[in-house]
Amino acid sequence: MLFFIFLPIFVCRMEKFSVTILGCGSATPSPKHYTSSQVVNVRDKLFMVDCGEGTQIQLRRSKVAFARINHIFISHLHGDHCFGLLGMISSFALLGRTAPLFIHAPKEMWSILGPELDFYCRDLEFQVEFQGFDPDTASIIYDDRSLTVSTIPLRHRIPCAGFLFKEKKTPDHLDRQWADFYQVPMWDYNRIRNGGDFTMPDGTVIPHSRLTTPSPAPRSYAYCCDTAYNPAMIPLISGADVIYHDCTYAIGEAQNAAKHFHSTASDAANTALEAGVGKLILGHFSARYNDEGILLDEARQIFPNSVLAKENLEIDIH
Amino acid sequence: MLFFIFLPIFVCRMEKFSVTILGCGSATPSPKHYTSSQVVNVRDKLFMVDCGEGTQIQLRRSKVAFARINHIFISHLHGDHCFGLLGMISSFALLGRTAPLFIHAPKEMWSILGPELDFYCRDLEFQVEFQGFDPDTASIIYDDRSLTVSTIPLRHRIPCAGFLFKEKKTPDHLDRQWADFYQVPMWDYNRIRNGGDFTMPDGTVIPHSRLTTPSPAPRSYAYCCDTAYNPAMIPLISGADVIYHDCTYAIGEAQNAAKHFHSTASDAANTALEAGVGKLILGHFSARYNDEGILLDEARQIFPNSVLAKENLEIDIH
Repeated sequence: MLFFIFLPIFVCRMEKFSVTILGCGSATPSPKHYTSSQVVNVRDKLFMVDCGEGTQIQLRRSKVAFARINHIFISHLHGDHCFGLLGMISSFALLGRTAPLFIHAPKEMWSILGPELDFYCRDLEFQVEFQGFDPDTASIIYDDRSLTVSTIPLRHRIPCAGFLFKEKKTPDHLDRQWADFYQVPMWDYNRIRNGGDFTMPDGTVIPHSRLTTPSPAPRSYAYCCDTAYNPAMIPLISGADVIYHDCTYAIGEAQNAAKHFHSTASDAANTALEAGVGKLILGHFSARYNDEGILLDEARQIFPNSVLAKENLEIDIH
Repeated sequence: MLFFIFLPIFVCRMEKFSVTILGCGSATPSPKHYTSSQVVNVRDKLFMVDCGEGTQIQLRRSKVAFARINHIFISHLHGDHCFGLLGMISSFALLGRTAPLFIHAPKEMWSILGPELDFYCRDLEFQVEFQGFDPDTASIIYDDRSLTVSTIPLRHRIPCAGFLFKEKKTPDHLDRQWADFYQVPMWDYNRIRNGGDFTMPDGTVIPHSRLTTPSPAPRSYAYCCDTAYNPAMIPLISGADVIYHDCTYAIGEAQNAAKHFHSTASDAANTALEAGVGKLILGHFSARYNDEGILLDEARQIFPNSVLAKENLEIDIH
């Protein structure tokens, strides 16, 4: 006699979702940090966010695979966020790339990037596909089976957008033991995984929740840099698992922060708190801080789950 | 009774003349080397030669003073020799520069650098003075009281020039004891220092060599990168105290060297030997060599006074 044990089987979440910091310094060069760049890994698709000078050097030092980067997102047109782009493109060529490379950036970038590519990269064996966006409008700029990337309008000296990487909800997991027990026909599985109930031949309705275990909640990561404190973006990043936020200054430099449209550690922490996010990564540090512990302490007083970015740090999004 | 001791007094050469390597890798990114850049210090005037991506990062790590660089020389328009320029200029601005910055580069560079400056560096508080040259013609492109910089046409895939930094001969040192002995009037000192003899009232001619000690021989440094072996440049660098030469490959990769218009270690050493230079610095290493000792050994078999470039190495020119 065979006993079926009707225990829901929870499927382990194995899909990768992480961010690797390549550079987290601000514009003034520092011996400690590279300028802004990071790589978001969503199920082994790699997305680069910002590409300051030296990004390719950092990439080479990290374990991130050059060849798997197909999309580069540029937040704004200050050099410390985009001066590494031409070098990256040239190195992709030297490394034998043939796959198209998509550059998502404020639309006016093309007026200079186009001529630069014509001048320096005439014989590329791959296509550079420029997809311009308006940094002042929140919109979806990338969409695939499992992910959307949306812009987050930020408050900076020039038009600037952050990026929200958001997994799509996947269908719930069908519990095959219950499905067999209620004799659900196979052709009906997908409808039920996507939220449907099952009606038995005798009219009894078996609810979706009995037949399935929930798929993991979609995870999300928001890159919010460069920006002054900006309450308008709170609804856009509300509930994100992890955010990376401009943290150029300590509170003692609030005037400088306001003047240059950057954030203090307190601004970053207040944003994280108000948006109810899971974790805050502090970055874009001014070169004046030899010890960024002062920024971390300040943020943790407001939002305890704060960490400091640093080069080659990889953080899982969960 | 007072005795004068008529010993010639040799004046120690105190004037600085050195080169500091900021990057000596070739184009393919490597975790070991930065791309091409170096700073030549001539009597505390600083001249940058080439400005690959990451130059400003390396400069910040070295002891070289940002603010004292007034001239940047670009050999050719491959990215690994010039993609750091915009970042350097932006950082000069952030660091409060007001003095003009002179960029000496192949003349066609202005067609892209001009628009780039308009796009990214609109509000500079200092002047960027572009001085284009023809890389295919040897000519003096910088000239001051103590120094000339001349172009050295090289043999590369695109027009490319090296640079010869050559001190001017300074007047010989007057030996005051002999001058007093022969009662040379002060108003005649400069003429004698510059090569003149002195004629005494009785018609006796006191030769220049009796009245002076020779000033040091003018020193010279030649940057020869990127280039294939190029006998045409030998006369231009003949007798230089130190040269930096393209040494991308070992002799086993001679075919690659020829294909890409680069040099092997043997090419570099033969050039040094034929030009009768004092010292050879090998640089622009392919990323394929984990241990560049193979290049050094190869060069030293032909030209023993060879050294490997490395980041932050400073070499005196003498």
